[in-house]
Amino acid sequence: MTKSTSTRYDPTTYEALTFHDAAQRFKTGEDSPQDFLERCLATIEEREPVVQAFAHLNPELARASAEASAQRWAAGEPLSPIDGMPIGIKDLLETKDMPTEFGCEAFRGNFPQRDNAAVWALRQAGAVILGKTVTAELGGSHPGPTTNPFDSQRSPGGSSSGSAAAVAARMIPAAIGSQVGGSIIRPAGYCGNVALKPSQGGINRGERQATSMSTHGVHAGCIEDMWQVAIEIARRAGGDRGWPGLNGPSTTPAARKPERLIVLETQGWAGLDASSKQGFAAVLDQLADLDIQLLRRSDHRLVEELECAISDAAAVCNSITNWENQWATRNLVKQHPEGVSERAKAALEHAESMSVDDYRVAMLSREVAQAAHAALAGSADAIITLSCPGPAHIWQGDQPGEPLAPLPTGDPVFNFPSSMLFAPAVTMPLVSVEGMPVGVQVFGQPNQDAEMTSIARWLLEAVAAVVVE
Amino acid sequence: MTKSTSTRYDPTTYEALTFHDAAQRFKTGEDSPQDFLERCLATIEEREPVVQAFAHLNPELARASAEASAQRWAAGEPLSPIDGMPIGIKDLLETKDMPTEFGCEAFRGNFPQRDNAAVWALRQAGAVILGKTVTAELGGSHPGPTTNPFDSQRSPGGSSSGSAAAVAARMIPAAIGSQVGGSIIRPAGYCGNVALKPSQGGINRGERQATSMSTHGVHAGCIEDMWQVAIEIARRAGGDRGWPGLNGPSTTPAARKPERLIVLETQGWAGLDASSKQGFAAVLDQLADLDIQLLRRSDHRLVEELECAISDAAAVCNSITNWENQWATRNLVKQHPEGVSERAKAALEHAESMSVDDYRVAMLSREVAQAAHAALAGSADAIITLSCPGPAHIWQGDQPGEPLAPLPTGDPVFNFPSSMLFAPAVTMPLVSVEGMPVGVQVFGQPNQDAEMTSIARWLLEAVAAVVVE
Repeated sequence: MTKSTSTRYDPTTYEALTFHDAAQRFKTGEDSPQDFLERCLATIEEREPVVQAFAHLNPELARASAEASAQRWAAGEPLSPIDGMPIGIKDLLETKDMPTEFGCEAFRGNFPQRDNAAVWALRQAGAVILGKTVTAELGGSHPGPTTNPFDSQRSPGGSSSGSAAAVAARMIPAAIGSQVGGSIIRPAGYCGNVALKPSQGGINRGERQATSMSTHGVHAGCIEDMWQVAIEIARRAGGDRGWPGLNGPSTTPAARKPERLIVLETQGWAGLDASSKQGFAAVLDQLADLDIQLLRRSDHRLVEELECAISDAAAVCNSITNWENQWATRNLVKQHPEGVSERAKAALEHAESMSVDDYRVAMLSREVAQAAHAALAGSADAIITLSCPGPAHIWQGDQPGEPLAPLPTGDPVFNFPSSMLFAPAVTMPLVSVEGMPVGVQVFGQPNQDAEMTSIARWLLEAVAAVVVE
Repeated sequence: MTKSTSTRYDPTTYEALTFHDAAQRFKTGEDSPQDFLERCLATIEEREPVVQAFAHLNPELARASAEASAQRWAAGEPLSPIDGMPIGIKDLLETKDMPTEFGCEAFRGNFPQRDNAAVWALRQAGAVILGKTVTAELGGSHPGPTTNPFDSQRSPGGSSSGSAAAVAARMIPAAIGSQVGGSIIRPAGYCGNVALKPSQGGINRGERQATSMSTHGVHAGCIEDMWQVAIEIARRAGGDRGWPGLNGPSTTPAARKPERLIVLETQGWAGLDASSKQGFAAVLDQLADLDIQLLRRSDHRLVEELECAISDAAAVCNSITNWENQWATRNLVKQHPEGVSERAKAALEHAESMSVDDYRVAMLSREVAQAAHAALAGSADAIITLSCPGPAHIWQGDQPGEPLAPLPTGDPVFNFPSSMLFAPAVTMPLVSVEGMPVGVQVFGQPNQDAEMTSIARWLLEAVAAVVVE
């Protein structure tokens, strides 16, 4: 158990670390990539012993990259607006200069010395690859050591645990995460990040073509950095094989007020705590006061249809993901029986109890839900719902002799919908409960990544963060 | 240069090695998996020095597998109709008991000791994994050492060179191949195999989710073995992630006479030799005599539309494939600059000259072609065209001091269409030219794998092979 520390989250005073404004000062020489990096390293030195966001850090190479970046800025020739940005890479993505261990004992020391497509693109854009961020084992539910920066007794969420926590602790302005069920939006929601889970296929996953629902995405301290990182990758490496990939303006799209928003309960609503319901209601009240029309399941038959189509989302998504991962997991368990968690083994057992037709049934449920979502195109500008089931829960590790906790990094119940709908989702830190962030997300039709970013930008400006004690 | 040998192909006397009939005799004890395997090993001993179909062979493990299979057959409990079938695995797919070298110097000795999803499924069905078959480097155009079993001075085609040649030389009754452009159907056409390139996503590629157009498929000596291998894999491992996967009857579907066939010229027609044109015309004449209606581009406006939509197939397919492979190839070249062929490096250079939008344009062309194909659904039972541009060409290796031959394993010009249309294709050895096989293929709408197999089965029974001297 780590030492307990508390840095209560107050959205009215919390200032996220941002890069785009600092980069403006690189031009004038008031600031530099090296100074920016040193500030990050100082914060890491201070916070990392408790937060434990990084699986690996490479300050020396980062310093060399920052120096090269500084020379480009001084020459007036940065490679992109994120030239010099220190960034963390979820430890599921390969990097040529750091090991890739997938948060899994079986991969301890794994060092393939090659760059994932997205990492390659970030380097092309001049970003400073500072470290690998902790992932839950293999992107699943078995947690790593990371703690929530706002209360070290609580979970940071997962599986992009380190990416969310490192950004929240102001160690880095942005980090790459990935999501199959809820692995970007939920930890970002628990940690007060802004984050993008792009449309399915939006950002080239390179060698990690993990499952039919996985995407790479971006955690950041602000929406400008979030978009800029995403578009700089997509402009260079495009989307996944066979997908058009993220597209949109070369700098963050302008804020746009939505006229109509669909309020989705999802499978998570029934089990949600009263304070989070109260906080979300207060956000919706502000939107109504701003003359935004809100459509709920009781207002629109097609919204009810969508709610019904995603009412079994958890089972559908887990079936698809466990089935698709089974060959990789089985090979791993055979080679390293002691190097894989019981949680991963349970997912394999689930897959082994399935038939090909069970998988087809789950995919059919996903397609039906996608059809219900597509049927709502035009009915509203976006869907709005919570990003996580309330504030992050207390998590102090598995206890000897006790059964394994079922969802140690939290319940993806508010995240399965955007994953199974292949929808672009952006989470914003609009609520706090018990001194902890609770994210609110908007998501839209596939390939509306830029539109969701515009709407999120407007919401971040127009909505006063709601504090529920 | 290998010793020249000639075993002129005569379709009226050539007898392919088949398994399904032998398996009938396993039940009665007249034959056994061990005896079948030993006959294969004897043929390999005789032919392999010249044919060079195998990258690795594992007779000891195969003998142990055959013995286990024999016990199951003796107990009346075979795992499947292919229990005991010796099979070759293209050396792009990982196998737990043999190295996987991708036909690439950089991967010499690579031995990940795990099974690809399709290999795992074959073992579950009781198949005897006898060896890894030679692949052109990385599934591209740079050839391995394999020669054509009917004339060792000629190419076996590629990239599934060893799979096609091993089946043609009667070393094994079936082998797994894979196709991105024309890597199953073309070598099978050059080698007189029956072969299935399934609908896109039809057979789980496991860890090798190579490109958006690649599929695993089956080379065999007869259509019964072809279908049985494919369906045994698909029943256990399903399709690719996110795809429904190959489906159909649990044994080979019955022969079905088509009423109407679309005759497609493709981009390959203009450059085709007169003898192959003559041979194909003689096949079509037989079909017309059997009252099958033939629709050509001059007969049907939508056929003309499809011909136009695939008229630039080579450029479209090469752009898509080179773009999608670029991150893997770039990492490989960086790590092993001497371990990658100039042909692979040229493909990387092509990719590096492209932008994300160039890739999107190529994908749009592919979608337009798919739309043109879909528009023909119902107009005919299948499309019929050649599987390869005439008989296999003379290929004796790159010559020092001379420029690299552009297409050493042959031109995929008749194969790009079924790949870019995600269409199931079956090739049949219906023509011979100059004592060499020339395949004829049928292909259909996506997921019509069983229908194409039925039609191919009928054609194999009803059409007399055409010999052109």
